[in-house]
Amino acid sequence: MTKLSPASFIGVSGNGIISFGSGQPDMPPPKEVFEVLKTFREFKYGMVKGQLDLRTALAKQYPNADPEQFVITNGASEAIDLVLRAIHDNGGKRILLPRPYYYSYPHNVRLAGMEPVYTDLVKGKIDIGDFRHKVKGCAAVLINSPSNPTGTVQEIETLKEIERITQELNIIVISDEVYKDIIYTRENYLIQGPHVVTVNSFSKTFAMCGYRIGYLWTTDAELVKRIVEMKSHTSMNTCILGQAMALAATQSDPRYISEQRKVWKERRDMIVSGLRALGLELWEPEGAFYVLPKIPVKDVERFHKELYEKHKVITYLGEWFGAPGRLRFSYALDTDKILEGMKRLKKCMEEFEE
Amino acid sequence: MTKLSPASFIGVSGNGIISFGSGQPDMPPPKEVFEVLKTFREFKYGMVKGQLDLRTALAKQYPNADPEQFVITNGASEAIDLVLRAIHDNGGKRILLPRPYYYSYPHNVRLAGMEPVYTDLVKGKIDIGDFRHKVKGCAAVLINSPSNPTGTVQEIETLKEIERITQELNIIVISDEVYKDIIYTRENYLIQGPHVVTVNSFSKTFAMCGYRIGYLWTTDAELVKRIVEMKSHTSMNTCILGQAMALAATQSDPRYISEQRKVWKERRDMIVSGLRALGLELWEPEGAFYVLPKIPVKDVERFHKELYEKHKVITYLGEWFGAPGRLRFSYALDTDKILEGMKRLKKCMEEFEE
Repeated sequence: MTKLSPASFIGVSGNGIISFGSGQPDMPPPKEVFEVLKTFREFKYGMVKGQLDLRTALAKQYPNADPEQFVITNGASEAIDLVLRAIHDNGGKRILLPRPYYYSYPHNVRLAGMEPVYTDLVKGKIDIGDFRHKVKGCAAVLINSPSNPTGTVQEIETLKEIERITQELNIIVISDEVYKDIIYTRENYLIQGPHVVTVNSFSKTFAMCGYRIGYLWTTDAELVKRIVEMKSHTSMNTCILGQAMALAATQSDPRYISEQRKVWKERRDMIVSGLRALGLELWEPEGAFYVLPKIPVKDVERFHKELYEKHKVITYLGEWFGAPGRLRFSYALDTDKILEGMKRLKKCMEEFEE
Repeated sequence: MTKLSPASFIGVSGNGIISFGSGQPDMPPPKEVFEVLKTFREFKYGMVKGQLDLRTALAKQYPNADPEQFVITNGASEAIDLVLRAIHDNGGKRILLPRPYYYSYPHNVRLAGMEPVYTDLVKGKIDIGDFRHKVKGCAAVLINSPSNPTGTVQEIETLKEIERITQELNIIVISDEVYKDIIYTRENYLIQGPHVVTVNSFSKTFAMCGYRIGYLWTTDAELVKRIVEMKSHTSMNTCILGQAMALAATQSDPRYISEQRKVWKERRDMIVSGLRALGLELWEPEGAFYVLPKIPVKDVERFHKELYEKHKVITYLGEWFGAPGRLRFSYALDTDKILEGMKRLKKCMEEFEE
């Protein structure tokens, strides 16, 4: 039996397939983003740190921020890779990850020559007692709220406690907030402190996944310097045109974001009630566009394969995210497709033989 | 005294400055590259490996190549970073670099957790005896012909001998051929073999530095797989629009390349005769757009600083490329500026006090 992985489903569509797989917005970016293309004719290297106009626009979005505290990267992925490589010093360091985690995180940690350790979420939330215990001796912690794959948002009190604990212990917090503009329950709480690196991107908020414009923000000037030096050898500037398009996105009508969120919420409500109607246990998503129900069968991997091969429904195996026994559904698709997907899921559950 | 580095000069221009600094074409890309912008409206993730149409176009440019043997990267820089990280296995491996080298290479090797060792060029050429001796026990060798910073092209017999030696010893050859379309003396010789990774980019041939579209080609399917897996965690797909522009570049009038080369050659002839008229010893550039003359003063670092600060001429210190006692001149600028730069260099040499 061929092992499936997220890569198995990239670019797989059409032919009657319903995909709850890839985590990318299906609705287009703000129109301003494409306006840029009419006149853009630059071609020379940009600044390795990122274009000053984009960094200036971003600095206005963060409290007391300065453009020099930002680095524009090839998506949030490169931001995380650069930060981890920059804090590695051959010391065999450990990095704390809440579990379930975004599936690249453990790979990112190992690729930077370090080791992941885990604190297991309880009902999708960080258990601060366990966190406090596990974080000791770690070089950094990598938080993702709202979370891919759980869809949960961490409590503000928890996030404040994490700020305090990590600052006291001098542990870096890498806060991946790429879903910060897609929260249904409250405003985003920005983790702050001299030891914090905020990671974000234009992929989810502005549906610009393919352009790979991410960034990091930290008040640690020495860390910024190390990261820029490293990036000057590993990829140089981020695509100058993608950056110009990202700048246009920052200048687009703010209603774009609230309207997107409204659509996401409708879809969230629909898929949650669909899954609950099938009797599936789940953590209600408070943000992002994922839900991670428990699948009440013994062999979830076989169920996952059968759901795809017999019923043409793509989902991601919870195991890939450190959540065995579950499947991740991305609800970045039309409500009629969500409904059809729920029907097929029901059929698969009925037909599946243990 | 503040230490200067290549980063000191990025984006420094105007104000009467003549820059022989940054290595980027000053003439624009083929017009087809910007035609793409009129209609491009995609926004979703692309394939991590790179868009199939671009890989198919590239495969036609290489002998017996298949699109699956290519990975499109954020410039040649990311290609080199990924290959080095992919061959690292915590074994404290050594990578052989001809010296002078492109200034990022030793950083790339160390960032991948390995150690650079060097074979010194003789009159800008690889000494195959020394190469044979030094390459033993190395995991890979990183060749750059035509070379930045020397401008020299390695002899075909030497390149063939390198193919043989490395294949026999099972050593990977990373062949950075980003200047392959800018050779004045002969056609490029493509190093080949099952152990070869060819690295190239659209930056120099098509003046697309800012878009960061590079690629690697190897027939080693296992290595491609490891690299794509790694890239899925560290940066995901390369910017989809940059790739569409690169595809357009492959479809542009081939005279673009020959016409560019003609301009480069005129500039090469002018700067070489200018430097020789000042009595400077140099290796005649056979490709790329750099020349690396010896500077007949004791303190070249101070001369370099004075040339910049008193005479507003930017050059790069040879030391940054493993070539102490020399300065690197990039001749990616108009002939009248080259002439003015030579005048100022003459003045600096006359006024410089040891």
